Amino acid sequence: MLSTMHDGPLSIARILEHGSTTHGASEVVTWTGEQARRRSYAEVGRRAAQLAHGLRELGVTGDQRVATFMWNNAEHLEIYLAAPSMGAVLHTLNIRLFPEQISYIADHAEDHVVVVDESLLPLFQKILPSLSTVRHVIVNGDPSSLQAPEGVQVHDYEQLLRGRQETFDWPELDERSAAAMCYTSGTTGNPKGVVYSHRSIWLHSMQVCMSDGMALAQADRGLAVVPMFHAMSWGMPYAAMMAGASLIMPDRFLQPEPLVRMITSLHPTMAAAVPTIWQGVLGHLDQDPQDISSLREVVVGGSACPPSLMRTFQERYGIPVLHAWGMTETSPLGSVARPPGSATGEQQWPYRESQGRLSSAVQARLIDDDGNELPWDGKSVGELEVRGPWVASSYYNNDDPEKFRDGWLRTEDVGTLSADGFLRLTDRAKDVIKSGGEWISSVELENHLVAHPAVAEAMVVGVPDAKWDERPLAAVVLHEGAQADAAELREFLLGRVAKWQLPEHWTFIDEAPKTSVGKYDKKRLRKQHADGDLDVEQA
Amino acid sequence: MLSTMHDGPLSIARILEHGSTTHGASEVVTWTGEQARRRSYAEVGRRAAQLAHGLRELGVTGDQRVATFMWNNAEHLEIYLAAPSMGAVLHTLNIRLFPEQISYIADHAEDHVVVVDESLLPLFQKILPSLSTVRHVIVNGDPSSLQAPEGVQVHDYEQLLRGRQETFDWPELDERSAAAMCYTSGTTGNPKGVVYSHRSIWLHSMQVCMSDGMALAQADRGLAVVPMFHAMSWGMPYAAMMAGASLIMPDRFLQPEPLVRMITSLHPTMAAAVPTIWQGVLGHLDQDPQDISSLREVVVGGSACPPSLMRTFQERYGIPVLHAWGMTETSPLGSVARPPGSATGEQQWPYRESQGRLSSAVQARLIDDDGNELPWDGKSVGELEVRGPWVASSYYNNDDPEKFRDGWLRTEDVGTLSADGFLRLTDRAKDVIKSGGEWISSVELENHLVAHPAVAEAMVVGVPDAKWDERPLAAVVLHEGAQADAAELREFLLGRVAKWQLPEHWTFIDEAPKTSVGKYDKKRLRKQHADGDLDVEQA
Repeated sequence: MLSTMHDGPLSIARILEHGSTTHGASEVVTWTGEQARRRSYAEVGRRAAQLAHGLRELGVTGDQRVATFMWNNAEHLEIYLAAPSMGAVLHTLNIRLFPEQISYIADHAEDHVVVVDESLLPLFQKILPSLSTVRHVIVNGDPSSLQAPEGVQVHDYEQLLRGRQETFDWPELDERSAAAMCYTSGTTGNPKGVVYSHRSIWLHSMQVCMSDGMALAQADRGLAVVPMFHAMSWGMPYAAMMAGASLIMPDRFLQPEPLVRMITSLHPTMAAAVPTIWQGVLGHLDQDPQDISSLREVVVGGSACPPSLMRTFQERYGIPVLHAWGMTETSPLGSVARPPGSATGEQQWPYRESQGRLSSAVQARLIDDDGNELPWDGKSVGELEVRGPWVASSYYNNDDPEKFRDGWLRTEDVGTLSADGFLRLTDRAKDVIKSGGEWISSVELENHLVAHPAVAEAMVVGVPDAKWDERPLAAVVLHEGAQADAAELREFLLGRVAKWQLPEHWTFIDEAPKTSVGKYDKKRLRKQHADGDLDVEQA
Repeated sequence: MLSTMHDGPLSIARILEHGSTTHGASEVVTWTGEQARRRSYAEVGRRAAQLAHGLRELGVTGDQRVATFMWNNAEHLEIYLAAPSMGAVLHTLNIRLFPEQISYIADHAEDHVVVVDESLLPLFQKILPSLSTVRHVIVNGDPSSLQAPEGVQVHDYEQLLRGRQETFDWPELDERSAAAMCYTSGTTGNPKGVVYSHRSIWLHSMQVCMSDGMALAQADRGLAVVPMFHAMSWGMPYAAMMAGASLIMPDRFLQPEPLVRMITSLHPTMAAAVPTIWQGVLGHLDQDPQDISSLREVVVGGSACPPSLMRTFQERYGIPVLHAWGMTETSPLGSVARPPGSATGEQQWPYRESQGRLSSAVQARLIDDDGNELPWDGKSVGELEVRGPWVASSYYNNDDPEKFRDGWLRTEDVGTLSADGFLRLTDRAKDVIKSGGEWISSVELENHLVAHPAVAEAMVVGVPDAKWDERPLAAVVLHEGAQADAAELREFLLGRVAKWQLPEHWTFIDEAPKTSVGKYDKKRLRKQHADGDLDVEQA
C-alpha cells in the first residue's frame, strides 16, 4: 500500500532556500581580527546563486568536486551551500594535514576546483604543484601572490561572483547522491574518504536541532570554533541554515584571546569546540575575567573532555558543557551526553562525563574479540560498532573490509553501553590490553598513574604473555627529582583498579614517545619493548 | 557519485526498538478516573511484540489495515507501534464522526481488524453490523457485552497477548510504504484517507522534537490531550517514543476537572490540546486554583487560539502557549509560532498569535484566484498551498484533482505569509468574500461585529453582486433585549476595517444556522439568502 505523502528529495538546495528566505534576516558573522563582518542569510542565498553560476562557467557540471582550503567564514558557508545545491560535491580539505597527505586526498577525490583563503596561500602554494586534477583555484581574497602551474587558472572569488544572477534554478537531485566529502586520516594507511549524501546531511541537521541533540534553534547564535574542514564543523553550518540560527565564524583567530573577544562582543548563545580550545579559553578567563554569560551551553567533542573542564564551566560560569561523541564517519553526531530527566544535581555528572546517549537513528552494538555481541550492562567492554542513515558503511573508492561489518562501522573505540544507551569509552581498540579474554583499558591505568604525585607521564601498552596473551607494561616518566619505584606505584594502583589489571611489567623512561601531533606513540613503545630497548622490571 | 552512507530505511520498528531499549525506563501513564496506571516503554516494547504475534495469528499479513476505535491509552500506543512495525497499516477511526461516516471509512480502508476500548463498545456496537471487511474485533477490556455479526470474531486484547514471545523479528520495509492512515472529513463529499509512510512519520517525529518544533525531549512528560484518532495526536506518540519522553494519556477523561487532576498529580511538562479544552481548564482553575507549574509549555492547535487564552496562560500562570497550524494532510505539524529571537516582550505577541513559522521541510506558496503566486509581504491574501515530505499530495484511492496542484496540497486556508515565513490565516477559502478582485475575510468582520455589546452572534457570507462579483452579507443575532440596527453596526465597523469591506447587506436573525459539530453553517445561510428566506436590509 502506497503512502499518499509527497515524494520529493531531501536536499541542500531546500535548506539553502529556506534559510535564505524565511530566515533571510539571520546572519553569518565572520571575525576579522579586530572586528566582525556581517552578512545576512538573504545575501548568502543570493551569493550562493552567483557562485553556482560562476562555477558552471568554470566547467563544474555533474558531480565534480569543489574543494575548499579555508577557515570558518562566510564564503566557506556559501560554498557549503552552492556546491551541493548545484549537484557538485563539496570537498573540505583539512589544512592541518601533512602536505603529502593533502595532495593524496585531493588527487584521490579528483578535485576540479579548490577555493583557498588568502591567508592560507603560503601553505597552499606548497601543495598546489603536486595536485594533478585541479584546474581552477579560486582565492577568497587577493590572488596575486599565488604561483599557479601550467594548466591551472587562478580566480578572484569576489570577481567570480560579481554581476551574476542572484537566483539559480537548482536541479532536483536524488537525495542519496553525494553532497559533500571529507577524508579521515586514520593511524594506518592512506586517508579515507567519507561521502555524505543530501539525505544524510538533512537528517543529521535535524538531529543537531533536536532538543536532545545540540538543540540549535532560530534564536541561537552559534559560535562554530570546530573547523568546517574537520567533520563538517559538527554539522553546525547546515543545521544553522535549517533552523535559521545565526553563525559566528572565527576565521583563523582560534587563540583564546580573540575567542573570548568574540564571545564578549558577538554574544553567542552556544559554541562548539574541542577540549583543548576550551581549556585555553578558561585559562585566559582566569587571567582576565570577562562576562561570557551569553552562552547557554558549550558543546565539547573530538576527544574525551576532562571532567574538571566541565565542572569549571558549570561551577564558575554557570554554563553547562554538553559532551558529544562522533567521528568523520558519523557526520559526526553519534551520541550526546544529556543526563536523563530523572537525574538531578550530582547524579547528572556521570551522564555528563560519558560519551553520551545514542540518538534514535544511530544503532549501536558492542562486539568482543570473537565477533560476539555483548550485553548493554555498563560493564561488558567491547568494540563499538554503529550503523545509521548518517553513518558511513564504506569509504570512497576504497575497499576496507576491516573497517565495516555487514553495513556496521567498526569505530575502533572500546567501551561499555549501559542499559539506557549511554556510551562510555575506555580505550582505542588497538591500545586495549587483552588479558585472558578480559579487556584492560590502557587509558584508565594511565589516568590513575598520573594521579601519583611523582609521575609526570604514564603510558601503558599490552605486551605478549604466554599464559594471558597480553599483560600491561607501564612506562613511567617521573617528575624531575621525584622518586617512586614499581612496587610503590603498583601499591598505589591497588584499590583503584581490579587486582588482575595491575601491570607486572614496569619501565622508567626519560621521555614518552609521541606522534607528530603530540599523542602518545604506543606503537613505538611496543616496538621498543619488542626490540629489547627498554629496561623492564617486574613488580 | 554515490554517497558512502548506510542505506537503510527510516522505520517505526526502529523508533519502537530505540524507545523500548534506550528509553525503556520512560513510561506511558494512562488515567483511569481516580488514579493512573503506569507502563514502562520496555514493557510497551515487549507487549508490542506479543501483539504483533497475536495479529499474525489472526491473519494479519502484508499491509492489512489494523483499525483502532480508542481513546488515548497505553494499549493504543502499543498498536501504534506494533501494526506499522510488522508491515500492517494502522488506521485510527475517529469515534466522533457520524456512524455512517465511520462505516464508510472502515469499508473504504478495508479494515481487517478493529481494536476497540471497552468504554466505546456501546458506540461501536451500532457501527459493527455495517462494517463489511472487518473479520476480527479485539476489545481492550471485557468483550462479553459485544454482539458480533456472523463472520466476525471477538477477542480479548490481553488474552491475545498472553504468553506470546516478547520479541518479534520486524521485517525490513520500504520507508515509503504505508505505516498509518487517518481520514479527514471535509465539508463536502465523503471523507478522504491520508496515508502516512514510515519515512513521513520519522521525519515528522524529528520535527516535533526539534527546538523550534514542539521541542519534545527525553526529560519531558507530555500530556497528549489531542486524540490519537485525530491527526495522530499531533505526532506525540511516535515523537515521544523517539525522544524517550514519557506520555500521559487521559483515556476518556477529557473534562476540565480530571485534566487538572492529571496535571497536578502526574506533573506533565508539556501538553497539547485544542483551544476549547484549554478554555475549559482555565475556567476550572478560576473556580479552584491549583498549581500547574510543572508545564513548561502548552501547545494549541486545531483551530485558531483566542489571544486572550494565550495571555491568560502566560500572565496568570507564567506558561507560554505555543500556537501551531496543521491538518490531517500535513501529519499535522506545518508551522509553529515561536517568536524570532530578535523579538522581546510585547513584540512577541503578534508572532505568538500567528499560525506560526513554516518549518524547513514544508514549502508554502500563496495562490490567488487566477492561480498566480502572491508575494510573501504580510499583506497579499491568497489560498495557502503546501508541499513537503510529511504533506499529502493525493488521497487514498480517491482522485481529487481540486485538492492538489502539481504535488501541492491546497489547504483551503486563506491568509498571508510574511517575508520571514510567518503564516497568518484569515479565513477558509470557501468563506472568503471575493469583491472586485480583492478578498474580504468573513471571519475578521464577524470578530469585529461580536465585539459590539448588542451582538450575540454574527455570521458574514458573500452574496452575488452584479458589479463586484460578491459583497458581504452580515447576519446578526442580538442579545436578548438588546437593540442595534444595521446603520449603527456599520458605523461601529467603520475604522475597524477598510471602508470597501463594510457589509451593505444586513439581516437580523433569531438563531445562527450551525452544523452538527456547532460551527457556523455558512452554506445554509447562503442558501437561505438565495432562496429569499432572509429579510435583508441595505445599509
